[in-house]
Amino acid sequence: MIDLYSVVSRVSPTKEEEDRIREVTDLAVGRLNAYLRENNINAVPAVVGSSSRNTNLVHSLRSSDVDIFLVFPRDARMEDLKKFGLAAGHHILPEGVEKYAEHPYVNGFINGIKVDIVPCYAMDKGERKISAVDRTVLHDKYLKSVLTDDLRKEIRLFKAFLISAGVYGSEVSKAGFSGLVSELIIVRLGSFLGAVQYFSSRRGNIAIPESDKGIHGFHSPLVVMDPVDDTRNAAAAVSTENMARLKMQCRLFVKNPSESFFFRNKREPVDWRSASDRGTHFRVIEIPRPDEVDDVIYPQANRFRNVVFDYLERAGFLPVSSGIEIGNEVLVLIETERKLLPLVERHTGPPVDSPNSMDFIEKWTSSPDRLRGPYIEGDRLMVERVRALRDLDEAIINCVKVTGIGKHLDPLKEDLKMHDPVKVMRFDELMNQYMSRGIMDS
Amino acid sequence: MIDLYSVVSRVSPTKEEEDRIREVTDLAVGRLNAYLRENNINAVPAVVGSSSRNTNLVHSLRSSDVDIFLVFPRDARMEDLKKFGLAAGHHILPEGVEKYAEHPYVNGFINGIKVDIVPCYAMDKGERKISAVDRTVLHDKYLKSVLTDDLRKEIRLFKAFLISAGVYGSEVSKAGFSGLVSELIIVRLGSFLGAVQYFSSRRGNIAIPESDKGIHGFHSPLVVMDPVDDTRNAAAAVSTENMARLKMQCRLFVKNPSESFFFRNKREPVDWRSASDRGTHFRVIEIPRPDEVDDVIYPQANRFRNVVFDYLERAGFLPVSSGIEIGNEVLVLIETERKLLPLVERHTGPPVDSPNSMDFIEKWTSSPDRLRGPYIEGDRLMVERVRALRDLDEAIINCVKVTGIGKHLDPLKEDLKMHDPVKVMRFDELMNQYMSRGIMDS
Repeated sequence: MIDLYSVVSRVSPTKEEEDRIREVTDLAVGRLNAYLRENNINAVPAVVGSSSRNTNLVHSLRSSDVDIFLVFPRDARMEDLKKFGLAAGHHILPEGVEKYAEHPYVNGFINGIKVDIVPCYAMDKGERKISAVDRTVLHDKYLKSVLTDDLRKEIRLFKAFLISAGVYGSEVSKAGFSGLVSELIIVRLGSFLGAVQYFSSRRGNIAIPESDKGIHGFHSPLVVMDPVDDTRNAAAAVSTENMARLKMQCRLFVKNPSESFFFRNKREPVDWRSASDRGTHFRVIEIPRPDEVDDVIYPQANRFRNVVFDYLERAGFLPVSSGIEIGNEVLVLIETERKLLPLVERHTGPPVDSPNSMDFIEKWTSSPDRLRGPYIEGDRLMVERVRALRDLDEAIINCVKVTGIGKHLDPLKEDLKMHDPVKVMRFDELMNQYMSRGIMDS
Repeated sequence: MIDLYSVVSRVSPTKEEEDRIREVTDLAVGRLNAYLRENNINAVPAVVGSSSRNTNLVHSLRSSDVDIFLVFPRDARMEDLKKFGLAAGHHILPEGVEKYAEHPYVNGFINGIKVDIVPCYAMDKGERKISAVDRTVLHDKYLKSVLTDDLRKEIRLFKAFLISAGVYGSEVSKAGFSGLVSELIIVRLGSFLGAVQYFSSRRGNIAIPESDKGIHGFHSPLVVMDPVDDTRNAAAAVSTENMARLKMQCRLFVKNPSESFFFRNKREPVDWRSASDRGTHFRVIEIPRPDEVDDVIYPQANRFRNVVFDYLERAGFLPVSSGIEIGNEVLVLIETERKLLPLVERHTGPPVDSPNSMDFIEKWTSSPDRLRGPYIEGDRLMVERVRALRDLDEAIINCVKVTGIGKHLDPLKEDLKMHDPVKVMRFDELMNQYMSRGIMDS
């Protein structure tokens, strides 16, 4: 049997970690209040996020941030909110940098703890949001009003389980469960085991609670209604694949519960160089990283990966699967069964009874690319012709040349490089990730 | 413009050929009558076939036989018909051999001309046939009653055109137009050009006359009603592919008529050894020839070819196409794009929501054949496993081992041999046929 009490204590922050976060929070809020007062800025700091709700995890599982929102009145001008909000942020975080995802904010460190200072507008339940992040303070208020110490334990168990299953994180590249969604699920289902039972026993799309299924025409794999906006699905970012992963992990846990379901966030290294005589071919396509955040780059990189994959599939190279890494470069890994295709390519023509059949015969009978035929198979014309692209590298290059690969990646096409990762050390981590792909990996 | 008069004279038998056939016919019939009289056999010889109707072709296009049926009264016992019929045949053809296709007969040569002596039962229009060949004499009578010298010329043009298009011959391996069907088409459509116009302008299934289309529920690509049995489609043997070939040839002829459409029965040799760097792999599978006629062997050989082709397709070897030759051995030629497949094979599992998903994970997690996974793609489980059959030769051998390849071929499985025809001279003709495959080739 599994001792969930012991797991709770292992996934919760240590006393030292809690103290340190509290110190940093107090320090930042104190300085912020003084700054606002001194500069006559009409805004109020609000400490939000899992570390302020005591639903964060031990540092070894996931590092905790301190998130402070600066709440401006609803009649403040957007340019003032931006100007004074960022100024306050820079005052608190002298080495902080401005970030713009959907919204400007300042990000920096105090005593080694990551701190975000985020300006926003005040908003009450039922009111329209003005900036992209205004709802966050309301979410935080709601959660703090319903959380108990018991629920906090259950939330920590569930979050560790989600991380271990590889489905935690709502960033675009992850398409998993946000902190908010994880906490709402436990609030509504009451416990970690209740949630696991729920997911393990459901098929198809899921709603929590069940009665919300299909509300407002949501066709998402998961529906978790936003507590401050009942027209919104807070879990819209969760992909079908991540729901499938979570269901599978829940079923495996129910069948055979063990502590390993909470601590599998570290991938075991695979000796893929000696184990990888798969008889296949690997290519890493490398593009310089555009100066944008991951959430902007990732969809383009993913589309790029899919474009290349589909192109190689249509061209007959039999791609096996692929991987992505976005770090200092954008890396797309492709594995294919074939590297060199035969010269001859079968080309299916129209049915004999089609009006185009004569043209097909005339065209191919005199074509220099004709190898054999035209001949008839069943009721169709066929011809065997010279294949235009036989080589894997040529095919990839050609695909990149003729296809748009995304607004920010397109200007960097010229700098594309192709590597055989088997011959290059620096792709070992990407290859290791790829080769050890398991039930919890994307 | 094309001079059809000149073509008629080129495709008709020479005076010498006609004389020789008449001499052989007279000799055989004379001897046969004497033999029947001397032995008190109650049967009447009937000379049938295209050489007796003057619808045969010049020897260089197709050699002519002399077909003599021995017509027994309808109350004769089958064993007497067989006994006396074959005895008469052996008397006329001392070196002749007995053949059993659907029916026993004697086949031999007189002065270099092939002669068949075939016992059958008398039959009048509307009567039921007793043996398989009884209708032939009636067909011959019908045709002789309607043929004119003009129609004979048109028939010869049409037959030469059909041979050139590769669609003449009703034997099982050919699935083309019999002499009877060719002659009926011209009798009904009036002329060679009429027939060509007819075929070139029709789509889908065809009936001659049009009004017969779909009669009695025939769903054949071609319906030509039997003149002595209006419940029978005389053209049932014609395959969809051969109809497609004929239509295409007719369209090409109508667009650009030339004498070459009558004299393409000889295939031009292709220098395939130097021209054939197709980047593909060839195998000839050789099985000893069972002691049976082509019409018995061919369907089995063809099924064998299809079984191997489909097996290789499913196994991932990407077969291009195939050929058959039935001579002293049964030869099946297969061309594939791939010879060695990678070790890794993707295996698609059940959807995550399926009741089998847990078993799939448990089975593969502990399987020694597991290479990567199980992992989730979309809503499905996938695993990469060790491929059982990677090598083309192994795969063919395995296919033959595990599959029934036909009643007469199965006992000869043990003697199967496999060759790379690129390295063996004696398959040059088969390879040449294969490599020069064109619009009129099967």
